[in-house]
Amino acid sequence: MSCFQVRTDLALEARESITDADGELRGVRVEESRSEKSEVQITRVIIDTKNGAKAMGKPMGTYVTLEAPALIEPDEDYHREVSEELAKQLRRLIPEIEKEQSILVVGLGNRDVTADALGPEVVDNLFINRHVIKEYGKAAYGREKMHQVSSIVPGVTAMTGMETAEIVKGVVDQTKPDALIVVDALAARSTKRLNRTIQVSDAGIHPGSGVGNHRNAITKESLGVPVIAIGVPTVVDAATIVGDAIESMLQEYGESGHFFNREHPKAMSELNNMYVTSKDIDETVKRLSFTISEAINIALDIA
Amino acid sequence: MSCFQVRTDLALEARESITDADGELRGVRVEESRSEKSEVQITRVIIDTKNGAKAMGKPMGTYVTLEAPALIEPDEDYHREVSEELAKQLRRLIPEIEKEQSILVVGLGNRDVTADALGPEVVDNLFINRHVIKEYGKAAYGREKMHQVSSIVPGVTAMTGMETAEIVKGVVDQTKPDALIVVDALAARSTKRLNRTIQVSDAGIHPGSGVGNHRNAITKESLGVPVIAIGVPTVVDAATIVGDAIESMLQEYGESGHFFNREHPKAMSELNNMYVTSKDIDETVKRLSFTISEAINIALDIA
Amino acid sequence: MSCFQVRTDLALEARESITDADGELRGVRVEESRSEKSEVQITRVIIDTKNGAKAMGKPMGTYVTLEAPALIEPDEDYHREVSEELAKQLRRLIPEIEKEQSILVVGLGNRDVTADALGPEVVDNLFINRHVIKEYGKAAYGREKMHQVSSIVPGVTAMTGMETAEIVKGVVDQTKPDALIVVDALAARSTKRLNRTIQVSDAGIHPGSGVGNHRNAITKESLGVPVIAIGVPTVVDAATIVGDAIESMLQEYGESGHFFNREHPKAMSELNNMYVTSKDIDETVKRLSFTISEAINIALDIA
Amino acid sequence: MSCFQVRTDLALEARESITDADGELRGVRVEESRSEKSEVQITRVIIDTKNGAKAMGKPMGTYVTLEAPALIEPDEDYHREVSEELAKQLRRLIPEIEKEQSILVVGLGNRDVTADALGPEVVDNLFINRHVIKEYGKAAYGREKMHQVSSIVPGVTAMTGMETAEIVKGVVDQTKPDALIVVDALAARSTKRLNRTIQVSDAGIHPGSGVGNHRNAITKESLGVPVIAIGVPTVVDAATIVGDAIESMLQEYGESGHFFNREHPKAMSELNNMYVTSKDIDETVKRLSFTISEAINIALDIA
Repeated sequence: MSCFQVRTDLALEARESITDADGELRGVRVEESRSEKSEVQITRVIIDTKNGAKAMGKPMGTYVTLEAPALIEPDEDYHREVSEELAKQLRRLIPEIEKEQSILVVGLGNRDVTADALGPEVVDNLFINRHVIKEYGKAAYGREKMHQVSSIVPGVTAMTGMETAEIVKGVVDQTKPDALIVVDALAARSTKRLNRTIQVSDAGIHPGSGVGNHRNAITKESLGVPVIAIGVPTVVDAATIVGDAIESMLQEYGESGHFFNREHPKAMSELNNMYVTSKDIDETVKRLSFTISEAINIALDIA
Repeated sequence: MSCFQVRTDLALEARESITDADGELRGVRVEESRSEKSEVQITRVIIDTKNGAKAMGKPMGTYVTLEAPALIEPDEDYHREVSEELAKQLRRLIPEIEKEQSILVVGLGNRDVTADALGPEVVDNLFINRHVIKEYGKAAYGREKMHQVSSIVPGVTAMTGMETAEIVKGVVDQTKPDALIVVDALAARSTKRLNRTIQVSDAGIHPGSGVGNHRNAITKESLGVPVIAIGVPTVVDAATIVGDAIESMLQEYGESGHFFNREHPKAMSELNNMYVTSKDIDETVKRLSFTISEAINIALDIA
Repeated sequence: MSCFQVRTDLALEARESITDADGELRGVRVEESRSEKSEVQITRVIIDTKNGAKAMGKPMGTYVTLEAPALIEPDEDYHREVSEELAKQLRRLIPEIEKEQSILVVGLGNRDVTADALGPEVVDNLFINRHVIKEYGKAAYGREKMHQVSSIVPGVTAMTGMETAEIVKGVVDQTKPDALIVVDALAARSTKRLNRTIQVSDAGIHPGSGVGNHRNAITKESLGVPVIAIGVPTVVDAATIVGDAIESMLQEYGESGHFFNREHPKAMSELNNMYVTSKDIDETVKRLSFTISEAINIALDIA
Repeated sequence: MSCFQVRTDLALEARESITDADGELRGVRVEESRSEKSEVQITRVIIDTKNGAKAMGKPMGTYVTLEAPALIEPDEDYHREVSEELAKQLRRLIPEIEKEQSILVVGLGNRDVTADALGPEVVDNLFINRHVIKEYGKAAYGREKMHQVSSIVPGVTAMTGMETAEIVKGVVDQTKPDALIVVDALAARSTKRLNRTIQVSDAGIHPGSGVGNHRNAITKESLGVPVIAIGVPTVVDAATIVGDAIESMLQEYGESGHFFNREHPKAMSELNNMYVTSKDIDETVKRLSFTISEAINIALDIA
């Protein structure tokens, strides 16, 4: 067990840090599979009891992680094979996807902060049709069945003065979508997950997640409609990374961590407000946003 | 009277085109003044009857126009003297400004289209404090009285799939501000108004205004709270400008316009979807957005 | 003949305005063809005598115009079929393209002014390999024959304080490319050419061309290596468009233009520094830049 | 002495890591002072022998460091008091600044990578006058004496296919400035220097410095004119930060570092290509670039 705070938005990492010690965990089921075609490793973590949720520090729900090392390599454009895999997982989590649904896609985060701009950039690339269908019907697209897609970039509290959840609730109340897809940049615990891991979950978004501070819950409970969250870790807290490195070194050499522990606040105070990210983060966020927006377009069969 | 459609968001221009023929106009009062210090010409057009509104093609309300030729010249930063004049006019239009008010500033338009980005850029530069006051009280700013400011950039229908008015209504219902300030880029009829004229009005925003297509009303009637609109014309429709030039030439030479009129759709069809703007529009919108955001900060005494 | 100054960077338009009166023109040959597959109309204007150059107001050389109406419609990405047609024309103009060549691509214009950002954006999307081949050889790409590509965005004189030609000459002297490809946004005379016409020429770039003011020649004479210019008109001068509209109206009604002519400076003075552009210019420049950069990649067989 | 590679562009840090062990260092003089008004701590490190250069791992020259904690706090605009202090130091390093000089400012780095965009952004904000003086003389500014300023953003090798030094040499050969000011983002060793430390030096720029890979020297030796370098550290290598943390912990507990050392490549391999930066880096780079461009404007007395 770590002597540093576990700071991760990934259920996969939360589970790893627990089962290092415990092996099996009640109320948490894990299913692993691998798509040979897309070279994507898929892990489904299903938390189905309150105890499991407590142990994991995550709400009950299904958390699907797609690990795609290819994502960090430049592609002609955006790694379509990963988009298709993500689309498949997304369709499993959206209720009643076989019927016509009206989906509101929410791009969380701050478009002026590179590592936090994933949500807004995904929304910029989406195919949006709700307004056209409302005015001209599905005939405008020559279709008999078509999901409706709308989107919003609510901004961050420091710039709006409002909780993100207030804005989203207002929009949901007015436009009454059947479900939400919420996209956000995440923090991971380890750099080996950065930019190559996509998490999809039906548990919604909870306070304090993500790079910025997008507060208050955006969940089925708070909004009355299902909320599917898509996230990619783009940063690791600098303090976490240093802590983990020290931790792993201490374990290797049989040091006990407890007396070092008291010193850590001093040693790490200058890491406050610092994060670790990849040198090509600007380009990476652009590429990831295409991969995800295309996955949503494919999942909803609209483009 | 023009044989071309009057395409202007400026009450000042609407009135000019009418009173060319009529001189006086019932239900429309005009007050002119000039600030020597700031070299700003101020015209207040007050439409206070339905007949006046019909003649002007504008809803009843007060429309204040600030003409500031200095605005099109580069400044050290943003023409503070114009900000102060605009702040003064703004305070006259916000009801109960002497009490503490909660103000939601809405930046209309498309931040990815230069000439239409005025609203979003004004919001980016605002001082926002609602979230801080909600959490820590006015003491956080060492103040006993302080207006609360929040903001939203709702985006445009083509990108959100929703009417802007739906989004704004949702946010108003959730956060219950006392009044709205809505900022938008406008279309003028004449290039001589471009980028140097600011219109402030208590009549809100109505369908089809602005550069893009921000539909449905954002008004006191639709939202239940006062709506103050601030706009600056950044474009002129290309067809309008050609039409006006021809018109003015015909008048000079005593031609009657009516037989020419039939030909105009053919001659101008290739001007559809074209607009006239200044060559330095990118830089101009940046400067104007500072002038306006600073005016709002001054009017609300928050920065 | 026009009573207004002909303001066009397109040889096609220059020729049209002349041959309205003269029919045939000595020293200027015109070849027209059409690609059914890509629906691109191709016109080659070859100016091969000094008289022809004088009559056209353009230096001697070959000017190929691709008219592709499809370009103004949104595509999945960037209209690959136009890229391929452009690549073909480009290869005909680059000398000794069958041998290995070192090509410097120059993106003229101002990246902060939307309508003038075409050159810089094309360069951003290019495949660049000169530095890799210099260090690791063609083996790094598993190729036995490969052109070398480098690129520069010199900026505009108002921002650099230097003539663009000075910067380009300095870079050419240092890095000794075999040929230059220079990309620039152009001004057209008519809105019907905007954003859908690509001109490729072996005559280089001459003073006063383009949207901004990129002065001094960038030509084979000034640099010692062949200069292929690629341009797309993104704006029309506002005064030109109004002048042409009036002109065409006067002709329809048998008015003689000469007495009107004296009045035109007054009537149009407020159009100074204004241009006409399409409402979706931001998105259009992005799409066009992909079409052109891909054409260069295909022509040079590097990606 | 550290068992990890010293990775710093700051002479100040290089000296600290050496004199931890040695105390005094031959061939390296250090002068410290403090400006009470601006609250800036100034350290001049003068390396004046080859031995000193070897010990420091830096070329001979004067390295002035301004430490201004205020820089990391938001200001009304850009911390003018720091600009004035920097201007003063800059004037001491530019030879013959009392005569009229022609100065070329070079903005190194990649404008599309936030932490590396400092150089290009400084250049964007500069007052440029060389082209005006060349064409209209100093009279255009009503001045009898005026330095000439030009600027270039050469881009990075991965995007241009050329060494930055090749481009700069070409421009210098063509335009013959009297001196260069080169601005670049740096890497520090410690996060406590990030964004608040400005280094000015007359030693020019050397291979491998900075965030990106701007290769080959830009120095008086290579160009024939003096080169003043201005840099601000915006990142720390992630491996360095972890290494330093472990180092400091080992020292505290009396561990000897040598046996740990062998393990470090494995433990840190996943930190390759990662850096640590502040969460508000996007905003910080904007503010810093104003501080520096204003310092240059003041030093050269041109705005």
